[in-house]
Amino acid sequence: MRILIAGVDGYLGWPLAQHLVSRGHEVAGIDDYSRRRWVGEVGSQSAIPIARMAERLEGFRENLGHNLRFFKGDLTDYDFVLQAYRAFRPEAIVYLGEMPSAPYSMIDVHHAVYTQTNNVMGTLCTLFAMRDAVPECHLVKLGTMGEYGTPNVDIPEGFFEIEYRGRKDRMMFPRRAGSWYHQSKVHDTNNVEMACRFWDLRSTDIMQGVVYGTRIEAMSEDPRMATRFDFDQCFGTAINRFCAQAVIGLPLSPFGKGHQKRGFIPLRDSIQCLTIACETPPGGGEYRVFNQFEEVYSVMELAERVQRVAGTVGLEVEIRPIENPRTEAEEHYYNPDHEHLLKLGYEPTHDMDEELKKMLEDLRPHQARIEARREAQFPDIRWDGSRRPSGFLDKG
Amino acid sequence: MRILIAGVDGYLGWPLAQHLVSRGHEVAGIDDYSRRRWVGEVGSQSAIPIARMAERLEGFRENLGHNLRFFKGDLTDYDFVLQAYRAFRPEAIVYLGEMPSAPYSMIDVHHAVYTQTNNVMGTLCTLFAMRDAVPECHLVKLGTMGEYGTPNVDIPEGFFEIEYRGRKDRMMFPRRAGSWYHQSKVHDTNNVEMACRFWDLRSTDIMQGVVYGTRIEAMSEDPRMATRFDFDQCFGTAINRFCAQAVIGLPLSPFGKGHQKRGFIPLRDSIQCLTIACETPPGGGEYRVFNQFEEVYSVMELAERVQRVAGTVGLEVEIRPIENPRTEAEEHYYNPDHEHLLKLGYEPTHDMDEELKKMLEDLRPHQARIEARREAQFPDIRWDGSRRPSGFLDKG
Repeated sequence: MRILIAGVDGYLGWPLAQHLVSRGHEVAGIDDYSRRRWVGEVGSQSAIPIARMAERLEGFRENLGHNLRFFKGDLTDYDFVLQAYRAFRPEAIVYLGEMPSAPYSMIDVHHAVYTQTNNVMGTLCTLFAMRDAVPECHLVKLGTMGEYGTPNVDIPEGFFEIEYRGRKDRMMFPRRAGSWYHQSKVHDTNNVEMACRFWDLRSTDIMQGVVYGTRIEAMSEDPRMATRFDFDQCFGTAINRFCAQAVIGLPLSPFGKGHQKRGFIPLRDSIQCLTIACETPPGGGEYRVFNQFEEVYSVMELAERVQRVAGTVGLEVEIRPIENPRTEAEEHYYNPDHEHLLKLGYEPTHDMDEELKKMLEDLRPHQARIEARREAQFPDIRWDGSRRPSGFLDKG
Repeated sequence: MRILIAGVDGYLGWPLAQHLVSRGHEVAGIDDYSRRRWVGEVGSQSAIPIARMAERLEGFRENLGHNLRFFKGDLTDYDFVLQAYRAFRPEAIVYLGEMPSAPYSMIDVHHAVYTQTNNVMGTLCTLFAMRDAVPECHLVKLGTMGEYGTPNVDIPEGFFEIEYRGRKDRMMFPRRAGSWYHQSKVHDTNNVEMACRFWDLRSTDIMQGVVYGTRIEAMSEDPRMATRFDFDQCFGTAINRFCAQAVIGLPLSPFGKGHQKRGFIPLRDSIQCLTIACETPPGGGEYRVFNQFEEVYSVMELAERVQRVAGTVGLEVEIRPIENPRTEAEEHYYNPDHEHLLKLGYEPTHDMDEELKKMLEDLRPHQARIEARREAQFPDIRWDGSRRPSGFLDKG
């Protein structure tokens, strides 16, 4: 199958390309290295060194025997996108080309406007380019579980049947996002659903949980094949940040009480799920939603888990919660469905301890790189618009 | 009360300024004449001639004895918006500054991107500027009934209580918009709700029906005080277009069967309702939704109504439905609530026939202007992305 990855230079895009090629697919990628710039802008770098694209492509050829076709350009440039789709004629597009950080989007008006423009207009351009160049193509669009927020009822996969005042309908489950970034994904969801309805496009909209991990099976030891690993306050996700903290002996710092529950998924499972979505496309005009995570945990549970596993490899760290810079519910009901991917054959890894151990192993050689950017991991971007470092909270 | 109108040069903005001043408010306005440009771009003009802003402001002084403070600039330019809010310190902002046409947004990718950028980023800039300059100010934001689409259940005002798998929550009622323009309003709704939640801003989000009419009480006969009246396929709303067709002897042309039901509201009532919203602000942090329309009609009922009233003033016209250029349900359930404004004292006009008669009277002197742009009223912008004129359908 010809599969194009929008955002192939990113955390998910680079390993996904390797996995898809190892499954026999023909893969192309688009990127303009935005992720590298954003992380640099917030004063950080990937803990694991990543090669330049020219070297990555060379490594790809040498390790996987595949010429990955690469288009350098901006996903909000319609003419560029159209030309790329016309040239490669993808049967599936995995759209990972968005600015993925909630705190980054909350910095100020310019970052909010940038985030929504980049994400929403990029997706719009892809919808039009699909219509105009590859109408049979399947759009696998990366959304986030954060679109739903934390409602007091179960969260279905995208849609629900309701009865209201004695009448029934099947409707989109209401979204309640918690940052300008998360809102950009809600806007995407609405735009993509409409394009499928009007233009008979087909799409799988992935509501993904928080990803963690450094590796997938298809990845060789060649450093050119490694994927990035962020630990700063904007681009580092919770577990990844905890592991980086453990490696340099900083306390693991959940936000607030740490009782916030979220769905989490290891990198290898995320890649497995995206592949399943590509290989089992929906019909023309169909818009379907997958909730993509392995299991629900509270952030404190995960901090304790990382602490325990770190201890087994000789890294003694404490847990010290810090003031929550976000406005979010810290005690809430959370019960999202996640059946669709399991039905299509997703086999969850389950062994989180093993995964955490590998992450710590992979990060230890790069301790100095994390040290060098240790300031970048302390949160100071607040949801109220101010910029003040979060202090440690008393244990309790 | 100090009230700022974003989009003061538009169809609603100009009469609203007059009405608010006649009620004793201090009024300022922002505009960059975008509406004039858009209508020109689609090959049309206002049927009723409108004066340039300098003349309008002079007319305002002479007729109402009020110096309307005018800021010329782009609502997506944050620095400009912030300066305007800092200078005027509005207690309410009526945000009408959006591109309001569904067909215009469906022309091509550039118009879709422009529409969502202009509307969504403009509103975002206002939310940030409110937070930073006038956090107590009340945002009266113009949305559209079209955000909801036509679900098979009653449409509440913004929110509903649901029971789902035995648990309860109060949630946003799911939106299902029918064009890139309507989606831009859904995106706004989500962004505004979040800003109220995080920053304690206060907002009334108006889901307005289709507006028709040429006049309000506060408007004198001075031609500088007249508001625009569009009849082209993009900016002309259904009843306004029917009246323009009647005046030049063209058949009234509902789309398809004409059984689509919508909420409609006369211009004078729209202005009355926006004023009520301003004068009864919600509390800090409150986001409330008003469904703003007078009554629900099918498009065919309205065509018949215009035909009948036109007959009484000597204009004999036939009704000839044309092929529907849009993708929309032509037979559907439709029962939206509209209680909030009535509870706050909204008194609907009810006399539609009288309103239609005035409109025909106001348009007849400008028959030649409508004639000169008659081509602009025939729809050819299709929801499938093509551009083909809609033909007449057989009666039946």
